[in-house]
Amino acid sequence: MKNIKQMSVPELEALAQRIRERILDVVSRQGGHLSSTLGATDLIVAMHYVFDARKDPFLFDVSHQAYAHKLLTDRWDAFETLRQFGGISGYTKPSESPYDYYVAGHSSTSVSLAVGAAKAIRLRNEEGERIPVVMIGDGAMSAGMVYEALNELGDRKYPAVIILNDNEMSIAKPIGAISRILSHAMASPFYQKFKERTEKMLDHFPDSAAYMAKRLEEGIRMITPGILFEEMGLEYIGPIDGHDMEQLIETLETAREMHKPVIVHAQTVKGKGYKIAEGYFEHWHGVGPFDKESGESLKKSNGRSATQIFGEKLCELAEKDDRIVGVTAAMPSGTGMKLLMERFPDRFWDVGIAEQHAVTSMGPLAKEGFKPFVAIYSTFLQRGFDQVVHDIALMNLPVAFAIDRAGIVGEDGETHQGAFDIGYLRIIPNLTLFAPRDNGTLELAVEYAAKFPTPCAFRYPRGSMMLESGRYEATPFELGKAEYLEKEGEILLIGYGNGVGRAVAVADRLREEGVRAAVLDLRFVKPLDLRKLESATAKFSRWFVFSDGAKMGGVASAIAEALMPESLEKIEIESFEYEDRFIPHGNTKLVEESMGLLPEQIAKKIVGKLAVSG
Amino acid sequence: MKNIKQMSVPELEALAQRIRERILDVVSRQGGHLSSTLGATDLIVAMHYVFDARKDPFLFDVSHQAYAHKLLTDRWDAFETLRQFGGISGYTKPSESPYDYYVAGHSSTSVSLAVGAAKAIRLRNEEGERIPVVMIGDGAMSAGMVYEALNELGDRKYPAVIILNDNEMSIAKPIGAISRILSHAMASPFYQKFKERTEKMLDHFPDSAAYMAKRLEEGIRMITPGILFEEMGLEYIGPIDGHDMEQLIETLETAREMHKPVIVHAQTVKGKGYKIAEGYFEHWHGVGPFDKESGESLKKSNGRSATQIFGEKLCELAEKDDRIVGVTAAMPSGTGMKLLMERFPDRFWDVGIAEQHAVTSMGPLAKEGFKPFVAIYSTFLQRGFDQVVHDIALMNLPVAFAIDRAGIVGEDGETHQGAFDIGYLRIIPNLTLFAPRDNGTLELAVEYAAKFPTPCAFRYPRGSMMLESGRYEATPFELGKAEYLEKEGEILLIGYGNGVGRAVAVADRLREEGVRAAVLDLRFVKPLDLRKLESATAKFSRWFVFSDGAKMGGVASAIAEALMPESLEKIEIESFEYEDRFIPHGNTKLVEESMGLLPEQIAKKIVGKLAVSG
Repeated sequence: MKNIKQMSVPELEALAQRIRERILDVVSRQGGHLSSTLGATDLIVAMHYVFDARKDPFLFDVSHQAYAHKLLTDRWDAFETLRQFGGISGYTKPSESPYDYYVAGHSSTSVSLAVGAAKAIRLRNEEGERIPVVMIGDGAMSAGMVYEALNELGDRKYPAVIILNDNEMSIAKPIGAISRILSHAMASPFYQKFKERTEKMLDHFPDSAAYMAKRLEEGIRMITPGILFEEMGLEYIGPIDGHDMEQLIETLETAREMHKPVIVHAQTVKGKGYKIAEGYFEHWHGVGPFDKESGESLKKSNGRSATQIFGEKLCELAEKDDRIVGVTAAMPSGTGMKLLMERFPDRFWDVGIAEQHAVTSMGPLAKEGFKPFVAIYSTFLQRGFDQVVHDIALMNLPVAFAIDRAGIVGEDGETHQGAFDIGYLRIIPNLTLFAPRDNGTLELAVEYAAKFPTPCAFRYPRGSMMLESGRYEATPFELGKAEYLEKEGEILLIGYGNGVGRAVAVADRLREEGVRAAVLDLRFVKPLDLRKLESATAKFSRWFVFSDGAKMGGVASAIAEALMPESLEKIEIESFEYEDRFIPHGNTKLVEESMGLLPEQIAKKIVGKLAVSG
Repeated sequence: MKNIKQMSVPELEALAQRIRERILDVVSRQGGHLSSTLGATDLIVAMHYVFDARKDPFLFDVSHQAYAHKLLTDRWDAFETLRQFGGISGYTKPSESPYDYYVAGHSSTSVSLAVGAAKAIRLRNEEGERIPVVMIGDGAMSAGMVYEALNELGDRKYPAVIILNDNEMSIAKPIGAISRILSHAMASPFYQKFKERTEKMLDHFPDSAAYMAKRLEEGIRMITPGILFEEMGLEYIGPIDGHDMEQLIETLETAREMHKPVIVHAQTVKGKGYKIAEGYFEHWHGVGPFDKESGESLKKSNGRSATQIFGEKLCELAEKDDRIVGVTAAMPSGTGMKLLMERFPDRFWDVGIAEQHAVTSMGPLAKEGFKPFVAIYSTFLQRGFDQVVHDIALMNLPVAFAIDRAGIVGEDGETHQGAFDIGYLRIIPNLTLFAPRDNGTLELAVEYAAKFPTPCAFRYPRGSMMLESGRYEATPFELGKAEYLEKEGEILLIGYGNGVGRAVAVADRLREEGVRAAVLDLRFVKPLDLRKLESATAKFSRWFVFSDGAKMGGVASAIAEALMPESLEKIEIESFEYEDRFIPHGNTKLVEESMGLLPEQIAKKIVGKLAVSG
């Protein structure tokens, strides 16, 4: 392929078209992010034409839109393995390619990274030779982190080009000032306000000023979108057409030569080039395999997901109890809150990508007698950690955290794994942690949370629960009470949440091998059922622990910690939780297999151990 | 006292004066926050005149400025016990008074709380009867949380009054757009830019427009400060004189009647009413006891603090190694970074209250070959938790976290205790955690961190290390190696960080009781010295663990977790870390005594145990 820098505009346009086709082809076969990455393709081609990924730090916010960048940097063929285990990541990843400057996956980190890169460039005396280039979507602009970073950037004036990819749609409906400016600059409340005030002022002038006032207004309309950024000390160019290659190149070259922080506001169409996806549908943000011609999904849904069960159950409860309210941070569909927002628009809110604010804003509602549910992914609640500690737990308020995507999330990979929530939540005073084992107990968990008088959190996995519904009776939660599912055995398997399904599956395999295992559903990792655990120390000398979470600070750790003062004589605990490393992307089963966590692998290991020790 | 609502303006002014005198009197005798609370007194008196703390949620950001509020709500006498153990908290605290609506201590939560309260008020159909009232300083406006909250507030237009207490000084030098608008509205780059563009536009008009253009400019100058807020969908009134009682009352009444979200921009003087403190000195933000007449501090500094040692050592290293860079989030003096910012203004940055951005922005510097130090308090690093995971540890970059204020911080109390960092950091893959035991090893810790090739964090307490310098030789850190300070004994005391000092002090007491204890300085809580710990299981059957941190997920927990697979036969571990509750304010020694953590208390408990078990 001809070097991109030597291409003409028509050649670049043709290249963008080929890239879009390749993306559509691979994603339609194996799923991935689609509409944002198609929409950003022209921008990325222009970026590569104007800047140089070998030296300029390319910073893709979230980076789910960066497929074109991957295809332009030596991964055309490897792209075939997109998001597959051992294959190309769905996000930028420096260990995959030297052209990927930084890891991304969580939103709104790119401007902070640009500030850091710009500082390094200045200290290395490389200004003029290298410049950070950010690509960020309008939806990511609602997170406080971006504002913190723009503040410093505007203050210190490091050269940087920030391409604001304005596709008028974040994952869900965007919220907030910047989004409003971008989408509705010309009809914005700001502009209206400004006009009003200007007119009031002009009232004091002679009539002859009317014509001028009108012209002035027109001028102001042109200035409007840039004001917020300029107020922050940043230069602003735009809006430009994000699919007009010639204009893009010219604008990016201008921005580069300004040697200042510059926002280039480019308007794009999500799903550009694939007619069926072009437009405003959250549906096409991230997709499974689908038929290219019809747009129909190829995979049959396999049963109800935990998310669905949560959403439907909460909806049922909210119907009866108008104290129930809730919040999601830009994930209405992902967390099942969409249903509730539609049904009860006054009681359920999407605050955009703003986890800190989402958590804290629910505190006063709890104080005022309402029952807030914060529905959030395990990995994204990390953004609200201090707020859980300082604004909810310290006040001991009955906010319920519904933690979705707990455990391995599959193809999204290491930035998205829900591995740490048990560890970081367990250390917070006043917080109760529990988990359902199957669909029936998930419904009971929602009911239990709705009545729980202090802060609590319950976790459930992406997709379906491992334990089949109905195998064990769904018994209500009782504070700090574990439950034996199988009472007798030579060894004890302890499960927590989706880990119970794994424990039961392991027990099934062991039974085939002639080993009988007792199974305890822990139900609460905080507070622990000390009575049952202590009496189990007398009965079982070998314990095996299962949860979809990190070993370090996890469930087995909690048990060892709790039994420690009583001395752990005679018992041996082995944890089958996650090892202390970041967990890569890929089909969940393949990822688990690589970690030795499939029931058959575990059963084999346990049988081996028992054989050795007699 | 006459009901505040019935007072005349001169009476209110006299009341404010009495309050200031009371604050000055108590704070000069026992320390506390001074300049911000004096500066906010008139505002708070006006707040209480116009609003009603019995029904309107009063939300004081950080709440260190709320002393006047405490004095106005039944705590005039009890104020005598300010910040003392068992006494009045230095922050708002609902368990102390029904007039304190919410806990605060960490910055920039107030607007989120107002949004939550406003939602509750709307759902309860109490709009018109109740309205949330926020008081927030200009320094707190740099945190992303505020922006997230203003975004939603402006979008949904809940009635709320936000009093922006603009004292032109946050704890340190403020940064960012809002601060700039407030302080320099009339000379702001925005205004300049606007003027420039307006002038360009006017060039196209006939000469006769010149006069009008001038008048228009003047008009625009009046509009400027409000633009950013109005852009966010918020009404703006100001700036007003925050010490003019009549104007304050009138403005707050207007704001209340607007039934919209309104920013009231009030300009105040820090330290108002105490001539010595009036002005720009970080020195008067939080103080120990001082002489009212001279302003001289009454307490002699007792030895070098850990913060000082850290700052001086880092300065010495930075002198020799220009790869060393660093960041603080609005705590240049508190973290010892001030020295470095003055000496190396290009390599050390204060980014304002913006922990998320502070952490992430250091990642690219590490990637580019620099050695960043992030100096931050244990409690505030909670705000950057996701950033440590996603932007530093996942990239496995050599950023060093210097965690100040680890352990009990004393008078600031439960919002500020450094109890959780071991727990929330230990679960993060790729991160190494170690801690110095005394001044000498703190210097070595800084050296070790400066050369450490991957992410690491080391912690040290507020004030001085407990272990006296020179009692044990300062030996260099070696990855994952613990060190015996006393090899022989009937029992084993394990210390981590400042906990080593406590372990040694306990061993001293035990010796007096005829019990000999071995002392192991763990040095690394991640990775643990498994070899030494395992061989210790053969030698000691009773272990006692000491660290200034929470028990849950803490050091003893880590040890139990690590030894678990090898079986914990024959040993018993007891942790003397913090119980699982939020720790109240007060003199650190009194707080520790209430928790049974003084060496003499611990020694007694251990002796008792040994007697029972023989």
